[in-house]
Amino acid sequence: MRWVGILVVGNEILEGLVLDTNSHWVINRLKALNLRVKERITVRDAVEEIALGIKRLLSDGCGLVITIGGLGPTHDDMTLRGVAEALGLPMELDEEALEMVSKRYRELYSMGIVESDEITEARRKMAVLPKGARPLENLVGGAPGVLLEVDVGMIVSLPGVPEEMKWIFENRLIPLLGGGEEAILSERMVSLPIRDETILSPIIDEVMRSIQNIYLKSMVKPYGDPSIRIWITATGGSKEEAEDKIERAIELLTRLLERHGEWAPHS
Amino acid sequence: MRWVGILVVGNEILEGLVLDTNSHWVINRLKALNLRVKERITVRDAVEEIALGIKRLLSDGCGLVITIGGLGPTHDDMTLRGVAEALGLPMELDEEALEMVSKRYRELYSMGIVESDEITEARRKMAVLPKGARPLENLVGGAPGVLLEVDVGMIVSLPGVPEEMKWIFENRLIPLLGGGEEAILSERMVSLPIRDETILSPIIDEVMRSIQNIYLKSMVKPYGDPSIRIWITATGGSKEEAEDKIERAIELLTRLLERHGEWAPHS
Repeated sequence: MRWVGILVVGNEILEGLVLDTNSHWVINRLKALNLRVKERITVRDAVEEIALGIKRLLSDGCGLVITIGGLGPTHDDMTLRGVAEALGLPMELDEEALEMVSKRYRELYSMGIVESDEITEARRKMAVLPKGARPLENLVGGAPGVLLEVDVGMIVSLPGVPEEMKWIFENRLIPLLGGGEEAILSERMVSLPIRDETILSPIIDEVMRSIQNIYLKSMVKPYGDPSIRIWITATGGSKEEAEDKIERAIELLTRLLERHGEWAPHS
Repeated sequence: MRWVGILVVGNEILEGLVLDTNSHWVINRLKALNLRVKERITVRDAVEEIALGIKRLLSDGCGLVITIGGLGPTHDDMTLRGVAEALGLPMELDEEALEMVSKRYRELYSMGIVESDEITEARRKMAVLPKGARPLENLVGGAPGVLLEVDVGMIVSLPGVPEEMKWIFENRLIPLLGGGEEAILSERMVSLPIRDETILSPIIDEVMRSIQNIYLKSMVKPYGDPSIRIWITATGGSKEEAEDKIERAIELLTRLLERHGEWAPHS
């Protein structure tokens, strides 16, 4: 399985002005594609911090790095310069990206949304990419997404405006990522009538030791809640295999809890 | 000004099960205390990844590192082991923390919320801290927060359950952090009737060059929205000084936009 690293770029998030829901959305879409996120790094609008974040994610074993934010025309949009610096690449005008940007502003001008369709310096900036990168068309905004494949991995840069990010992800990125032919993931949340979560720890450990490629996480609940939710994920060669592991895990959990005297289901 | 780094710990966030609102809350509370966040790193429940995240935040110049999540009694709560590993400290039972945990479980038992007040291995785990750390009492849950002061900075560990995290932050951490006697921060959001944000870039640059210690960020709006919001923050020796900088910035912005023919306020 290929691990993904997410780099969120933007002072507005680290200043508490914006709640980062973008990365949550991306994580869930990746999960549906059988891609899991190892790490998320959130940095300010600063070239060297962006570059460092990318280098760290790549060196941590993320074969795919997705950056979110900082692709626009304004002075503080510097994600692509950070990508270039991380990989030691020059920035250069990309003709395909320039054509996308030009086409987009002609459309916006013809709709009366912008004052002119001139390619100003700020607009041209959105077509200057790290050398070797290619643009991912953005039909709902000005800045194209960017995809760069290098030896160490793939870096995909998406804009931070949620509608634009989602549009490029769904319509331009997914076709390129290809289907994961590897492990199939299943997950299920079970709710167990246990009042004291501290008894669960050794039981969960035993379930995880007994069944391969399974992961159990108990969700902490405030005191007074009569049940604890346990989230179970399993991977297997097929949906059936993964589901079967989850069934076995629930069965084993139940048996171990009964032995502990905590739970007597259906009795 | 002291920079803060945030380490969010938890598979549930990187698996998309939980939207991380904790760090957003912490960022905003810190801002009110004149402390700003340089970087946020989110990692899985793995000791070595937690340790690496802490080391990175400290080496990036964060004098205060706040970890969120992974303090509970279950097998996957391993934040404190990560803190200890990052700093090369052993873990040891802390008597004060053990007393807090014991007292808490006696209360919970007397209220009929847990089955026994015995200090099981899982409960005892919550009182095993990196050597030299001290517990921050948690009156709304089982796991104390933890504060550790070392040469390179201060590390504060808070639980991931939002009510517990907030309670410890407000009632135990704030009194220890002390008031920032340094720069006073002011901020304001202004809304400008400009349809095309790309013209703003050189104007914002000029305002930021002209006034010291000011930061302007234009918030991207979907096309069709008639105005752009610009978020202005300024720091100064007093509230008045910071506010005055914001006034001057708005005045300069207006003048530059008028010159550009984009905006004619009150005319």
